[in-house]
Amino acid sequence: MIIVGIDPGFAALGIAVLELLPRSTRVLHHETFTTRSVDDDGDRLDSIAERLLDVLDQYEAVAVGYESQAWADVAARQQALAKREQDDSTIGISASSRHLHEVVGIIRCVARAFDVPCYCLMPSTVKCAVLGKGGSRADKAKVKERVRLMFALGRCSEHVADAVAIAVGAGVRHRRHVVTTAQHASLIH
Amino acid sequence: MIIVGIDPGFAALGIAVLELLPRSTRVLHHETFTTRSVDDDGDRLDSIAERLLDVLDQYEAVAVGYESQAWADVAARQQALAKREQDDSTIGISASSRHLHEVVGIIRCVARAFDVPCYCLMPSTVKCAVLGKGGSRADKAKVKERVRLMFALGRCSEHVADAVAIAVGAGVRHRRHVVTTAQHASLIH
Repeated sequence: MIIVGIDPGFAALGIAVLELLPRSTRVLHHETFTTRSVDDDGDRLDSIAERLLDVLDQYEAVAVGYESQAWADVAARQQALAKREQDDSTIGISASSRHLHEVVGIIRCVARAFDVPCYCLMPSTVKCAVLGKGGSRADKAKVKERVRLMFALGRCSEHVADAVAIAVGAGVRHRRHVVTTAQHASLIH
Repeated sequence: MIIVGIDPGFAALGIAVLELLPRSTRVLHHETFTTRSVDDDGDRLDSIAERLLDVLDQYEAVAVGYESQAWADVAARQQALAKREQDDSTIGISASSRHLHEVVGIIRCVARAFDVPCYCLMPSTVKCAVLGKGGSRADKAKVKERVRLMFALGRCSEHVADAVAIAVGAGVRHRRHVVTTAQHASLIH
């Protein structure tokens, strides 16, 4: 069972391909995909879409997972509130925040193109999947450290560590989804 | 030469399929695709992606066009500035604005999945394509009225009229792109 975990980003995107076997889980591939700020915004989005389509084409993934970016707006709002006395131009959504949501749209569409489920995970769900039930309040650094140790990733980027954690979370969610669907089917028949 | 024009939206999306022949242009298909607010946000995005993938699969389009949604942020910011004395919660991006950008990501990804160029058109570009050079300052209602008359669309929705105008704009852009590419190739050879 192969799961693709994605840490959404416009300048840098984390991608992790995880294989879930009955008694083990291994990282088949991980990368930080970057786009250059000198390039056209549309071209940058297209290169992200192309890379993700390639990844799903290469590995026969059964599901895709990404972390919810709803927090990005909350953070942007708090920043805007803090700065609004100084500078009105900070109020509203920034271009980078807009592009982040466009990347989320790309991720969902890639999953649809390959007809696999796409899970949007809350940060707390990702933490619990890696650290267990008590992990929802752990800080992000701890989650990344655990993931690096679990899969012997060494000095991988923040984005890769995030993507691997997200893939673990998506794997848990997908297994539950498969079990529930099977139980439901057995109840009907 | 078939062009797909899309008026981005989360609750309602305009789709128009235009065929550009040497001496005529005709609308092959138009629709307003809607999603229901009672449904899960992820499911709504997925249904949009699925519909657009189906449309591109059915018609062999050579290009996709959509209207830039950068203005959505400007409008949101102005609204936030106007209201900020009354209510802090209006500052920042709203969920609907976020979803709008996610839909833009979906549109770009659909074009990539079918390996066709995707044009992001400014509203003024769309107006000029329909009304001619002096049209960039015309109001939107006039553009829609002209499009309805041009293609005998009757009482089609606002979204459809927008999508047809966007398809016309994308067709103009694509023809220019093809000509430029051909000229460039002939200069090399």
